[in-house]
Amino acid sequence: MRCSTPHDKLYAARLHSCMSRDKRLQDRSIYPHWCTDTVRFSDQDAAGHVNNVALCAYLETARLTFIRDVGMMARSEDGVRGISAGMNVSFLAESHWPGQVELGTGVIGTGTSSITVGSAAFKDGLCIVAAEMTIVRLKGKTPHPLNPGLRAELEKYRLKGF
Amino acid sequence: MRCSTPHDKLYAARLHSCMSRDKRLQDRSIYPHWCTDTVRFSDQDAAGHVNNVALCAYLETARLTFIRDVGMMARSEDGVRGISAGMNVSFLAESHWPGQVELGTGVIGTGTSSITVGSAAFKDGLCIVAAEMTIVRLKGKTPHPLNPGLRAELEKYRLKGF
Amino acid sequence: MRCSTPHDKLYAARLHSCMSRDKRLQDRSIYPHWCTDTVRFSDQDAAGHVNNVALCAYLETARLTFIRDVGMMARSEDGVRGISAGMNVSFLAESHWPGQVELGTGVIGTGTSSITVGSAAFKDGLCIVAAEMTIVRLKGKTPHPLNPGLRAELEKYRLKGF
Amino acid sequence: MRCSTPHDKLYAARLHSCMSRDKRLQDRSIYPHWCTDTVRFSDQDAAGHVNNVALCAYLETARLTFIRDVGMMARSEDGVRGISAGMNVSFLAESHWPGQVELGTGVIGTGTSSITVGSAAFKDGLCIVAAEMTIVRLKGKTPHPLNPGLRAELEKYRLKGF
Repeated sequence: MRCSTPHDKLYAARLHSCMSRDKRLQDRSIYPHWCTDTVRFSDQDAAGHVNNVALCAYLETARLTFIRDVGMMARSEDGVRGISAGMNVSFLAESHWPGQVELGTGVIGTGTSSITVGSAAFKDGLCIVAAEMTIVRLKGKTPHPLNPGLRAELEKYRLKGF
Repeated sequence: MRCSTPHDKLYAARLHSCMSRDKRLQDRSIYPHWCTDTVRFSDQDAAGHVNNVALCAYLETARLTFIRDVGMMARSEDGVRGISAGMNVSFLAESHWPGQVELGTGVIGTGTSSITVGSAAFKDGLCIVAAEMTIVRLKGKTPHPLNPGLRAELEKYRLKGF
Repeated sequence: MRCSTPHDKLYAARLHSCMSRDKRLQDRSIYPHWCTDTVRFSDQDAAGHVNNVALCAYLETARLTFIRDVGMMARSEDGVRGISAGMNVSFLAESHWPGQVELGTGVIGTGTSSITVGSAAFKDGLCIVAAEMTIVRLKGKTPHPLNPGLRAELEKYRLKGF
Repeated sequence: MRCSTPHDKLYAARLHSCMSRDKRLQDRSIYPHWCTDTVRFSDQDAAGHVNNVALCAYLETARLTFIRDVGMMARSEDGVRGISAGMNVSFLAESHWPGQVELGTGVIGTGTSSITVGSAAFKDGLCIVAAEMTIVRLKGKTPHPLNPGLRAELEKYRLKGF
């Protein structure tokens, strides 16, 4: 980034702090939770490699498999559910059909009613995409606090070193 | 976010500065470039609303239509091309089939060889997703500086107020 | 088809009768119902043209917009719904991003509890895909007869000449 | 199908002969070629089950993995390639995320320059979709005869009983 004004410098600093660019997310050894997805021919685009939209689908597989495995998938009796509030994604390397992507996920942090997870997809030895994704617990339209049981479960899936 | 340690406070501050949460991106009047996409039935998921992966597809429509319209789409004779390096996305409201999404896009800033654009999708009067996306010019694997002609073109598409 | 045995000849005859190859389906003037979809960059595959899976998504847009417009979309109070039982698709021409596809649809025939529609997608003056698709009305798991009101509505959308 | 006229009877007979409805295609034991795909959350639609478009993506995985494994994938030096000319698909049962689909494929028949394959996807013990798909060998825009080597290879993948 060319940063010729103070405003630009602040902006560059913010981008620099972008979590999904954090090199640690590209290190397989930090991830406590794993699943896989299959690269489809139709995931590739006219540029001849896996399209960014498909990479977002892999990240959804990572996030939702994680959410299911920590017991947050089913809508509870009192109507509490988790929604995806946002994500910060870095597209890191080209990838191609055919094959599998391995998806690592773990907890970066928790707030009163939100969880931030880090995820990355690996194919043929390369980290092709890394992301920080925020999940919010809602009851109706209102944020709902994480209960102690869920917090304890989430601690088991903390990203190593975070 | 519950922030009990200095590290957490720093983290919360960083999230707080997340560009795609910037309320200004939800204001249609700031966008100089517009296009549309069609919501497909298959864009909806088992939760009964448009899936996050489909929202990322709409953002790609916004980004690539913009890239084409500023003349960056065709791979130039000297092999320079634009790639999507990353994005920061906020999922803001539920949306449903059928209908169109209107996609606003504009330039937030430029670096030596990169462009950051802001985009948002609107449906039925609501801003359903907003994003900040970074495009990098590459020659082979090396970042390639934006030339003066492209910079002048990009200035025409500056997001109002940014 | 090389057909060296009687069985092969029967097989070739059957393929020859494939409705979606019927040239009439490539004629825009026969269609009473129209809608559109937007070609997405991610609809294209590594062969550089719109992928067959995306063509099936366009056909779904055609079929479901039709189903909605004849009043069959909402699950009725008595639990009757329409499901897609099958389709016969012919991929007819290459197509590319960007642009719109125009989708024509009309009724080929009705059975006791099923409806067969013909659809085709047109882009830049070409018929890129044509299909015959069967919709079955079900109550639970049991086929449910089309009522006279629905039959009358469907007659308005008969494909011309069929 | 209610068939009150001779024309309708002919039509019903043709549908009745639809290969993808052939019960034999739902029998796992006939398939010589197998691969898998991963069901994605976003493959499900607002009806709460795997969407028909996603089922077509699974069938593409089946078809293209087969094409690759018989050596037809790479565009040959003389510009010959295989394209998908059409398919006849029957949607047979509802399916859900998460899990894998197992995809069986085999040769139904060959013509001078075309190959017809049968495929089916199985999940949790159920056949969820079956299809007959036609691949045509083209050189430029002209059908190109299958050579003896390819014919011999294809014979190894004949669907049992077909």
